[in-house]
Amino acid sequence: MTQIFSYPKLFQFVYNVFFKIGCNEEHATLATKVLLSADLRGVDSHGIARLSGYVRLWETKRINANPNIKIVHETPSTAVVDGDAGLGLVVAPFAMQVAIEKASKAGTGWVSVKNSNHFGIAGYHAMMALEHNMIGIAMTNASALVAPTFSVERMLGTNPIAVAIPAHNEPPFVADFATTTASNGKLEILQRKNEEAPSGWVQDAIGNDTKNAAILKEGGAMLPLGSDREHGSHKGYALGSIVDIFSAVLSGASYGPWVPPFPAYVPMPQNMPGEGLGHFIGAMRVDAFRPQSEYEEHIDNWIKRFRAAQPVEGRQKVLIPGDIEREMELIRRKEGIPLFDSVVKELKGVGENLGVEFLTSAEK
Amino acid sequence: MTQIFSYPKLFQFVYNVFFKIGCNEEHATLATKVLLSADLRGVDSHGIARLSGYVRLWETKRINANPNIKIVHETPSTAVVDGDAGLGLVVAPFAMQVAIEKASKAGTGWVSVKNSNHFGIAGYHAMMALEHNMIGIAMTNASALVAPTFSVERMLGTNPIAVAIPAHNEPPFVADFATTTASNGKLEILQRKNEEAPSGWVQDAIGNDTKNAAILKEGGAMLPLGSDREHGSHKGYALGSIVDIFSAVLSGASYGPWVPPFPAYVPMPQNMPGEGLGHFIGAMRVDAFRPQSEYEEHIDNWIKRFRAAQPVEGRQKVLIPGDIEREMELIRRKEGIPLFDSVVKELKGVGENLGVEFLTSAEK
Repeated sequence: MTQIFSYPKLFQFVYNVFFKIGCNEEHATLATKVLLSADLRGVDSHGIARLSGYVRLWETKRINANPNIKIVHETPSTAVVDGDAGLGLVVAPFAMQVAIEKASKAGTGWVSVKNSNHFGIAGYHAMMALEHNMIGIAMTNASALVAPTFSVERMLGTNPIAVAIPAHNEPPFVADFATTTASNGKLEILQRKNEEAPSGWVQDAIGNDTKNAAILKEGGAMLPLGSDREHGSHKGYALGSIVDIFSAVLSGASYGPWVPPFPAYVPMPQNMPGEGLGHFIGAMRVDAFRPQSEYEEHIDNWIKRFRAAQPVEGRQKVLIPGDIEREMELIRRKEGIPLFDSVVKELKGVGENLGVEFLTSAEK
Repeated sequence: MTQIFSYPKLFQFVYNVFFKIGCNEEHATLATKVLLSADLRGVDSHGIARLSGYVRLWETKRINANPNIKIVHETPSTAVVDGDAGLGLVVAPFAMQVAIEKASKAGTGWVSVKNSNHFGIAGYHAMMALEHNMIGIAMTNASALVAPTFSVERMLGTNPIAVAIPAHNEPPFVADFATTTASNGKLEILQRKNEEAPSGWVQDAIGNDTKNAAILKEGGAMLPLGSDREHGSHKGYALGSIVDIFSAVLSGASYGPWVPPFPAYVPMPQNMPGEGLGHFIGAMRVDAFRPQSEYEEHIDNWIKRFRAAQPVEGRQKVLIPGDIEREMELIRRKEGIPLFDSVVKELKGVGENLGVEFLTSAEK
């Protein structure tokens, strides 16, 4: 059901695809690195499984493989970046670079991005700040799949938030999560297995809780983090809204139900109020707040204390955000990345269409 | 069971109490305004019902009524403020003022605060930014009542986040929520009524879900937004952790299980790693991202579109964060603020101890 491929081999194939559709070497390398960081970290829904989707968006001219990404508005600590319809996989790192440069001078940097496309995992972009001793923040809006509390209409994307916080001797704190109860990736896995979703993940077309994991095809919607009003869904709805407003209303991208859909066969919404989809990227120098050495002592102490919290019976320890993904990356860099047969088949198709050779079995 | 009091009369009493414990006129006025903004907005747990708690903290010398609040570290877009053990009710507005001044020059301003105390509702401080055409953000850590996912130990406070976003013709978007499934205030109300909590709000001392609303007195804990792992509690845990780190690890306040408790009779934790509790306050000028008029057109459009989302049967409309509190404030300014008899009794006791006359019935 799955086959294992080495990271360097997958890298070469993905690079060749991006290069073939017109990305220059630098962009193809970066896009590949960002896309595959999802597979390395175990977020399989956002990695190479989406490559065919990006290529289809390029085929329908919704993605510009050779964008002129530029700053269109700025202050000492802010900027708006126009992604020129480029791959979010290269637009978002550009924006984080701007945020890091602003932060190095002004203490913090905040970049709202318009005219972009899906940017892979938010965590990649947030983590770019870590090596600069900065906290990194990345969020993005996405096509509407989520119903606000008390709504039957899909108004928000799964709008993820990532926050990466550097440590010293401890590994960094890296949170990266959709502002919904469950990610769309998890829902897709259940559909593929023909299994039911837990109560509280999705609602049907009239707003009732349902366990039908395929309900989005029948007018249903995903639920904001919290699931229902009694369990705080209005908080998840607020979080998703904040991501949407920071990413798009501040930048000039489309928002809410007008965010362009990822599947290229879905028609674009009418009367879109902005350009492409939007991201919001931030960087904060930790020594803009207190001396580096004091910060390092206390962030390490924070992480150690939380890791030492008494676990429930049957659990070895309490996890710090990012632990699971970091451990997964160690394993997959060494042992390879498993891909479903269906994904392998799709990748072969992408390769054939573009005249890019997919890996032979011997090359895995 | 409740009595109604007018806002101006309550204001006078609370002002007199703060003045009597040594606040100067400016601080007493501000602290009163911040505290009662909770009652006006319907967040009864964080308003005048807590006045006796603040006074007890002052009695045990954990609150300094005459603090020298000052900036101890800064860059163009950041600062750390030392609250000098003052009332959070005056320390946080000072910090927001600094953030607003930074933002007016650098585009954004971010202030981490140490050596503070409870600051009332986060929403008040975030909303200070609105009249400057800025987005306001306010968060705070608080004494540990919340167990991380898979933990039986209380490690985090209810650590609220408020985000206030200005609009033009529409009222502003104001989200203000604890990063737990339910607020502690809601739990206290259930205890007072001797009612059960919904499943997913709290766990018992060994980490099992329970409906016992008084379980915190028996070693239980509140649950992060999401309730359990399957419904995303690791996301609520991450959010609460981010609030804790931004508020305290960046500033030098105490964090995690070491945050000083609000009830004065609870002993202080041992080996506290910082000073007091911490807040994190931010302001972003909207015209640091795009021209004011463009922003206003699109934020109004966002709000109108979401308000027009199709509601579930039985609901008139989909709410925008802040709608309920704004409507409550209109009513309570006009019709008065209801207080439970138990709160009235406590306030009378506070007044008697300090020699401050409580309102007579005729004065309500």
